[in-house]
Amino acid sequence: MVSSTPASSAGPSRPLDSIRYELLTFGDELLLGLTANGHLTFIGGQLGRGGVRLSRNITVTDDADAIAGQFTESWFRSDVVITTGGLGPTCDDRTREAVAAVLGVELVFDEAIKAAIEARFNRLGRVMTENNLKQAYAFAGGDVLPNPNGTAPGLWFERDGKVLVMLPGPPNELQPMFTDQVMPRLAARGLVAEGEAYVQIRTAGVGESALETRLQPLFEPYGEKLSIAFCAHSGQVDCRVSSPCGRLSRAQLESIAEQCATLLGEDFLCFGHDSPAKVCADLLRAQEMTLAVAETATGGSLANSFTNICGASKFFAGGCVCYSNEAKMQLLDVPEDILIQHGAVSDESVVAMAAGAAERLGADYALAVTGYNAPCGGGGSENPVGSVYIALYSPRGVWSKKLCYPGPRSAVKERIVAAALDWLRRELVRGRHGLNAARPNLGAELPQ
Amino acid sequence: MVSSTPASSAGPSRPLDSIRYELLTFGDELLLGLTANGHLTFIGGQLGRGGVRLSRNITVTDDADAIAGQFTESWFRSDVVITTGGLGPTCDDRTREAVAAVLGVELVFDEAIKAAIEARFNRLGRVMTENNLKQAYAFAGGDVLPNPNGTAPGLWFERDGKVLVMLPGPPNELQPMFTDQVMPRLAARGLVAEGEAYVQIRTAGVGESALETRLQPLFEPYGEKLSIAFCAHSGQVDCRVSSPCGRLSRAQLESIAEQCATLLGEDFLCFGHDSPAKVCADLLRAQEMTLAVAETATGGSLANSFTNICGASKFFAGGCVCYSNEAKMQLLDVPEDILIQHGAVSDESVVAMAAGAAERLGADYALAVTGYNAPCGGGGSENPVGSVYIALYSPRGVWSKKLCYPGPRSAVKERIVAAALDWLRRELVRGRHGLNAARPNLGAELPQ
Repeated sequence: MVSSTPASSAGPSRPLDSIRYELLTFGDELLLGLTANGHLTFIGGQLGRGGVRLSRNITVTDDADAIAGQFTESWFRSDVVITTGGLGPTCDDRTREAVAAVLGVELVFDEAIKAAIEARFNRLGRVMTENNLKQAYAFAGGDVLPNPNGTAPGLWFERDGKVLVMLPGPPNELQPMFTDQVMPRLAARGLVAEGEAYVQIRTAGVGESALETRLQPLFEPYGEKLSIAFCAHSGQVDCRVSSPCGRLSRAQLESIAEQCATLLGEDFLCFGHDSPAKVCADLLRAQEMTLAVAETATGGSLANSFTNICGASKFFAGGCVCYSNEAKMQLLDVPEDILIQHGAVSDESVVAMAAGAAERLGADYALAVTGYNAPCGGGGSENPVGSVYIALYSPRGVWSKKLCYPGPRSAVKERIVAAALDWLRRELVRGRHGLNAARPNLGAELPQ
Repeated sequence: MVSSTPASSAGPSRPLDSIRYELLTFGDELLLGLTANGHLTFIGGQLGRGGVRLSRNITVTDDADAIAGQFTESWFRSDVVITTGGLGPTCDDRTREAVAAVLGVELVFDEAIKAAIEARFNRLGRVMTENNLKQAYAFAGGDVLPNPNGTAPGLWFERDGKVLVMLPGPPNELQPMFTDQVMPRLAARGLVAEGEAYVQIRTAGVGESALETRLQPLFEPYGEKLSIAFCAHSGQVDCRVSSPCGRLSRAQLESIAEQCATLLGEDFLCFGHDSPAKVCADLLRAQEMTLAVAETATGGSLANSFTNICGASKFFAGGCVCYSNEAKMQLLDVPEDILIQHGAVSDESVVAMAAGAAERLGADYALAVTGYNAPCGGGGSENPVGSVYIALYSPRGVWSKKLCYPGPRSAVKERIVAAALDWLRRELVRGRHGLNAARPNLGAELPQ
């Protein structure tokens, strides 16, 4: 039975925080550290938006005994169990069979799945090998979650009020299946909220406890009607505002969030889940402005943060990665005098890089970063390893500032990019409001 | 008791694959998908090199009951339990106390830890708040793993032949503590191999089953003396060669690996764990050559793959991210005629980008990438979304080829970078051997 619509009967209403979810991720490539567990990040995040938190994520090897043992334990103590991977055509795809055995459920051949797999092979002009038909077996009495992006469909099974969701492993198959099919089905049964369970106020440049102190007076009048959660991650702090048992309406929550945003001013990043780069991109597009970047220490990752955004060519004029003095002169017209007199890691050079990038690429704004990234040695007592200069060029002026971020190379890249994006964002907000430009020493630094 | 040296008495020799390891990672930020579980990737990888595989990784929330419940279960069924996080100074750092309660072990104040924390604060010129002293409590009868990169030390505890290892959460504290202190201690007890447990042959551009077929004849003469494992990940396949119970010596394993490398020719990437970018970097440095890059579709991530390597300035001349035609002309001297006549996404344009990057930046080699990355629309029937052109410039010529990678944006970036690195590496290998240069249609593509 192929069914893509959620069941229409909503389950009995239960408090979301009493529902026990477990995510089982199978595979030696995870346990051996060869692949990051992106399924936890994705599914945990989606469920979080729906107002529930995973009780556990368990990664075990994908042999049949391990799958069966772990599933038995998790099924017994959970309301919803989600598994990923092991539904494919090869002999090491064992999840379907192992779980069916634990449940004592028959696997039945599903003609509709077979037809969908055949159609996919035809469309791609490839011949379907016989082992692909293994994927056409589904749980007797269960549902099938069609997979428009691959061959193995997902499986959905319910018993005694418990739900089992089995998803294919490839992220480009799993992710749309989860948002388009699994979340609506869970919502229809009252197992996640309809829509987002909270209003999120995303902030940058302010620490968790300082944020709590600033926002507390706005929350106090609502007392127990309001539930507040703070989540700090990579230079940002999110504040999630919800109302237990729906005692405040969505509109009331949004109004409270608006008040928070107004109070926070430039420390407010966005409502919801946008990245700092996305917020900058939206501000640039709204003002019909463009951006260029010039980098040494961040080595392409500053450009990359913008080019990850769909439609980047509309606002991103381009970027240069230029370690050598020659490259700075050739690509960015940095005057040789400045490099010789002040050194390549200096306020003067980074300002010349930003101005050069803006001019060469015809951009309205530019960010430049230069410095000594650990652990590659660097410039003595004035500029120890970890010293970084950032410059911001805008229609209202050009400024630089010095930061110091010791630490491992890739973590430092991330922190510098975060600091640069935060500075640009504040300047774009001021530009929008026609305020004076950001001064280099004002509040643009991330908390250490 | 502060002790940084492993116990000298080696434990009884047990087969490594019979030792049950569990990794417990605590924290809502993992379960809510706000932070990726990098501890699994790191610790799983390190243990894998030591010849053992985690039986399970379990992520649970960090409240005291959840920690205690999960630890009880894992301690009962494991030989080694490793925990991460929750050892810090704040009230939500509860791991130490929760685990001590389960074990029925007293926490004792350790003057040496206190002195180390105070010294750290003094060195940083900061005042130590009283709550930091919570970190000075250690298990009675246990060991302390000093933390040179933070305040919370790790903890080591043994009972009835079982080992508990508790590590601080920040990666820059956990990682050196694990490699420098935990791995040697585990090795001294026979719980991981001394040194690497296998010889790894890393390959690129050949699929897992094809690789197995090619290498099998080399392995056959050794029969049961040899254990072979294949691990496929992001365009590479690793072949791990080991010998159960040490029936073959390390030298014999290395000799077999050498034969594999010879047989594989250009499909051999390296022994061990280097990335394709690191292999390219080493080839460039050995030949005293430099590299430049020019990108559109990869948007800075090609440059970033090289600048992640320490000492990149020695071989990486620089890079440009240039979406617009203006940027291509301004930064790379791409002739306007070519852009108009052939379009920006064409063999002609990408060759001009590569040549321009090499010339502008005075580099010996250059890679250029241009194309339409999903899902941002693109160029009609000739170049549908996902069409990418790569050019390689070398002292022996310049070539281009067209690839097609439909799929989500960031995954496609990764695949293009992998394809470009693989092409460059093959050309550098041929350059080293004085062979004719790679032809555009020869074997440089990754398996689909």
